[in-house]
Amino acid sequence: MGTIGTHYVYDGKKMETKIPKGFSANAVRSRIRGRDRLDLGLIVSDIPAAAAGVFTRSLVKAAPVLYDREIVANGRARAILVNSGIANACTGEEGMRKAKATAGMAADALGIAREEVLVASTGVIGMELDLSCFANHMAELATGLSPEGFEPVSRAMMTTDTVPKVSYRSLEIGGEKIRIFGLAKGAGMIHPDMATMLAFIVTDAHIDAAILQKILRRRVDTSFNRITIDGDTSTNDSVLVLANGRAGNPLLADEEAAAAFSNSMGEVMEDLALKIVADGEGASKLIHVRVKGAPDDHAAAQAAMTVATSSLVKTAFFGCDANWGRILAALGRSGVAFDPGAVAISFGGVILVKEGMALGGDSEARATEVLKGREIDLDIDLGAGGGAAVYHTSDLSIDYVKINADYRT
Amino acid sequence: MGTIGTHYVYDGKKMETKIPKGFSANAVRSRIRGRDRLDLGLIVSDIPAAAAGVFTRSLVKAAPVLYDREIVANGRARAILVNSGIANACTGEEGMRKAKATAGMAADALGIAREEVLVASTGVIGMELDLSCFANHMAELATGLSPEGFEPVSRAMMTTDTVPKVSYRSLEIGGEKIRIFGLAKGAGMIHPDMATMLAFIVTDAHIDAAILQKILRRRVDTSFNRITIDGDTSTNDSVLVLANGRAGNPLLADEEAAAAFSNSMGEVMEDLALKIVADGEGASKLIHVRVKGAPDDHAAAQAAMTVATSSLVKTAFFGCDANWGRILAALGRSGVAFDPGAVAISFGGVILVKEGMALGGDSEARATEVLKGREIDLDIDLGAGGGAAVYHTSDLSIDYVKINADYRT
Repeated sequence: MGTIGTHYVYDGKKMETKIPKGFSANAVRSRIRGRDRLDLGLIVSDIPAAAAGVFTRSLVKAAPVLYDREIVANGRARAILVNSGIANACTGEEGMRKAKATAGMAADALGIAREEVLVASTGVIGMELDLSCFANHMAELATGLSPEGFEPVSRAMMTTDTVPKVSYRSLEIGGEKIRIFGLAKGAGMIHPDMATMLAFIVTDAHIDAAILQKILRRRVDTSFNRITIDGDTSTNDSVLVLANGRAGNPLLADEEAAAAFSNSMGEVMEDLALKIVADGEGASKLIHVRVKGAPDDHAAAQAAMTVATSSLVKTAFFGCDANWGRILAALGRSGVAFDPGAVAISFGGVILVKEGMALGGDSEARATEVLKGREIDLDIDLGAGGGAAVYHTSDLSIDYVKINADYRT
Repeated sequence: MGTIGTHYVYDGKKMETKIPKGFSANAVRSRIRGRDRLDLGLIVSDIPAAAAGVFTRSLVKAAPVLYDREIVANGRARAILVNSGIANACTGEEGMRKAKATAGMAADALGIAREEVLVASTGVIGMELDLSCFANHMAELATGLSPEGFEPVSRAMMTTDTVPKVSYRSLEIGGEKIRIFGLAKGAGMIHPDMATMLAFIVTDAHIDAAILQKILRRRVDTSFNRITIDGDTSTNDSVLVLANGRAGNPLLADEEAAAAFSNSMGEVMEDLALKIVADGEGASKLIHVRVKGAPDDHAAAQAAMTVATSSLVKTAFFGCDANWGRILAALGRSGVAFDPGAVAISFGGVILVKEGMALGGDSEARATEVLKGREIDLDIDLGAGGGAAVYHTSDLSIDYVKINADYRT
């Protein structure tokens, strides 16, 4: 269960060739929550890199989020230290002290300044980190750094994830090959404004830090902010980018110059976002909710989000039930203005509803067949304008409830 | 499963003594969806009654909702015809024609005007009513009317409900005993702005229709609009009130004169609302989410609603997991302003979080014991002002998913 859309999963080619120049990584088993598994990872650039980040909008921010915001404000960093198991959230001043202490340990092991180290934690909220887990394994972590280390780091980040999630794009600017490599974790608490989601993007592009931050913020809106698994968001969500310039391209100093880079980085982010929702807790289906004909794009996003988060729609998908009535009901409460008598709905191209009513004939039987697939296009035309948007969601399954009822036990 | 808070269920005393003067009811098996069960009910006042109603705010309104809004606007009605099985929603002009036709059949059988008959439907969206089911049983329905008929009507309204839901209060005004009797159905698609919820209240109070409407609207906000099962709302939600004046009290012509009546009617509505959420689809627990210390009451309601609709909070309750981190995470994304370091959370009086952090000691073990109960108080103090609100919710269980994946099959 939980592994769908395998074409989104890393393609298995040698990962090292895809790692941007000057970056290395490593992961170790530090028993942060007592279990013998990869749970502590480190990503390092061999020279200082432009840094950017976006973080959870939740008022309840974990210590690593509060710490990283200060680092990202400098626009420069060299390393990301990540742990799973414990989120270091709701841990007060002690949590902040520990976030800084772990960054300091990594800095000492790498011979860099503490202010060059970003930290990220994911896992159970409210538990305190045991610093000895970090102290005991930092030398091992730093010694073993290599381009091959990204694969183990992508595993060390996992909590309820069933597969690691990486993505890669390359492009040429000024005759130089630029690599963009991304890693992400997340399977629950997934929702716009991210969630228990961590994503790291490393690139050897030479780019101004302020431009990088602008691009990141814009691309988040069409990637990580367009997926939903359970409507919940978390205290630790972070997307961090390091760009070290080792590709040797001319500096991307404004948005126009960075347009091609922005597109490629956006693709990496969208790919990671889809991998997250495809690995949604208990998910057996990946559903693309596409709304068009809305009064504007904002309204389209609102309508798509309401459908994509409806428990009744999501359980119907789990049951392979083409229950278009629940979709219309969700649209009706979305707050978007449209004429119910003008709505069209189709599943995988099979039109089921036209002008607000069931089409009849064999359309429902054919739509039911579509729903037996693992990846489904749900197309909605509100017939009320030119606005369009897409949200990606998973079904709501029995396993989702089992996973989340038992998570801490 | 699904039956909790049994003290909310009708107390088993003879129901007839609780029926307001001049009201009678009956229900029959009309095989609306082919099943041999009570599915068609009729409630009648022997004289014209003041009528009031509130309806779903969904843009997608079922035919009975559109029809009833016109009738309620008159301020007078005498009968309510209700069916389960098919919602007569998303059925276009044909659905409206059928809603009127069924009202007309009841009117003919009762010898009253069609405009005195309200109609309500609940069940599957998008299916059309078969008028012959109504035509074949209308005479039987009208002939068998009696005060004993309310109990079978409360069963005929049920869809995924596991128990019928009725409530009763009486009071004295001007030396006259006034009875208020309510019936409701609803177990899924329950959320503020109601849902697949139908509630009918009959009373022999003598009250001005405009005042009755005002009271109804106000009391809905603290009863049916404060419960949530799955965050979904429906196309058919209606609360209808008939007040026939047979108690003989002096006319309640303004809100001040009607204050005591309003309180009692509000109690009936709150009682019905709690019965609905206690019978939530697959629910094993009834949870009262009480928020205080919010900047204002509106913010408190927003915070309580966010916690009460969180899938992660609800699955944790199902798993008897005192996962306060998920509660804090939900509060953090609620949009309400507060200091995370000032929050207190307790379960059934057991304080688990103080100043935003776990209290430790045996508090978690004690809270876990509380969660093993079937009815749970979750108290949250945001420490940010004087605003307070309560929401009532159920847990999210494996049975919820099973029920909703299979509903139409």
